[in-house]
Amino acid sequence: MVKRVAVVLSGCGVYDGSEIHESSAILVHLSRAGAKVQMFAPNIDHMHVVNHVEGKPTEEKRNVLEESARIARGDISDLKTLNVADHDAVIIPGGFGVAKNLSSWATQGKDCTVQSEVETTIKSFHSAKKPLGLCCISPVLAAKILPGCEVTVGSDKECEKWPYAGTANAVKEMGCKHVNKNVGEIHVDAKNKLVTCGAFMCNAPIHEIFDEMGVFVSAVMKLI
Amino acid sequence: MVKRVAVVLSGCGVYDGSEIHESSAILVHLSRAGAKVQMFAPNIDHMHVVNHVEGKPTEEKRNVLEESARIARGDISDLKTLNVADHDAVIIPGGFGVAKNLSSWATQGKDCTVQSEVETTIKSFHSAKKPLGLCCISPVLAAKILPGCEVTVGSDKECEKWPYAGTANAVKEMGCKHVNKNVGEIHVDAKNKLVTCGAFMCNAPIHEIFDEMGVFVSAVMKLI
Repeated sequence: MVKRVAVVLSGCGVYDGSEIHESSAILVHLSRAGAKVQMFAPNIDHMHVVNHVEGKPTEEKRNVLEESARIARGDISDLKTLNVADHDAVIIPGGFGVAKNLSSWATQGKDCTVQSEVETTIKSFHSAKKPLGLCCISPVLAAKILPGCEVTVGSDKECEKWPYAGTANAVKEMGCKHVNKNVGEIHVDAKNKLVTCGAFMCNAPIHEIFDEMGVFVSAVMKLI
Repeated sequence: MVKRVAVVLSGCGVYDGSEIHESSAILVHLSRAGAKVQMFAPNIDHMHVVNHVEGKPTEEKRNVLEESARIARGDISDLKTLNVADHDAVIIPGGFGVAKNLSSWATQGKDCTVQSEVETTIKSFHSAKKPLGLCCISPVLAAKILPGCEVTVGSDKECEKWPYAGTANAVKEMGCKHVNKNVGEIHVDAKNKLVTCGAFMCNAPIHEIFDEMGVFVSAVMKLI
């Protein structure tokens, strides 16, 4: 039986959308594993658009589905059409789009809200006991929606290698268990069928992130 | 000695910029090979912006350097600052951005012009006998600038697997030698230190393109 995996994107570019290299690596590893992949994104406006040269917001308006379609090479659907019955697992790559478009984490932290279709998606897969794969900043979505779950976003010790370690501590304040992991490592919360890893939360060479995405995808596939 | 490789991007997204997965795979393989990578793009407007859901142009204006910065995670420079003395090789990933922003191939085919900084870059590396790596549609830039060179853009037999095979025939009409190659294969024109391959000119699974990019990057690194 071919394993069917939904991938939910949040735009295209680390500072306002899906992290491109995490997304691409996930698609490569899913392809190699023989998965049937369908990509989705919400048909909503970006919170804002970031000029990636300057790292600053612009006045532009962009649509999350249209920008995500760049990663999907056009083969993508509106997230509102996702039916959990058609998929065996769901993966949400990281990037600030998760914290800006799929939730309000970027501005509200642990008091954030999660975009309604994203919340429905996570709850539906969880209720159906189908695996969820969340990497980089995406595990905060599980921390918000699945109380008491176990996740990793890498390390909780802030340093040059782990510039976003505060996220791990916010996850703990939300009543979840945070498990420190190094680059290349993942955490599996078997009870919740939840696979997480830090990905580009770590300042690591891109090939190490690529390999970590391989471990991550394998774990999701194994839980199906 | 660390090998220093310049990567020239043309935007972010297959239909109006650099092909994201080719670019990401090239960066992964260069990172694994220990190369020191610097990314560049011309600071010019896109020919047009394509809505990647509909595959149709929009009225938006975007800048090639700013969009390329999405792939580069912000770490990118204006192509006009590229100094061939600082690099041992140059790689140009594919995507329609090559045919729309780095040249006018999309509208003029073999009668195209090449963007002046891109032309200077290719001529400078070639004169310095430093390797050029061009994949997907990018080999047409070499065909235009290096008369009589040998390239592959995959197959010259149009079919579902090779929807853009007409490109190979245009290359032949330009007086260059086109060598048919399958997915996973590359061509090396040793005289011109030119490495080419078809990449997403072929309708192949993304992990096969990823692996082909590995063969391609290895060949470029070996020629340094």
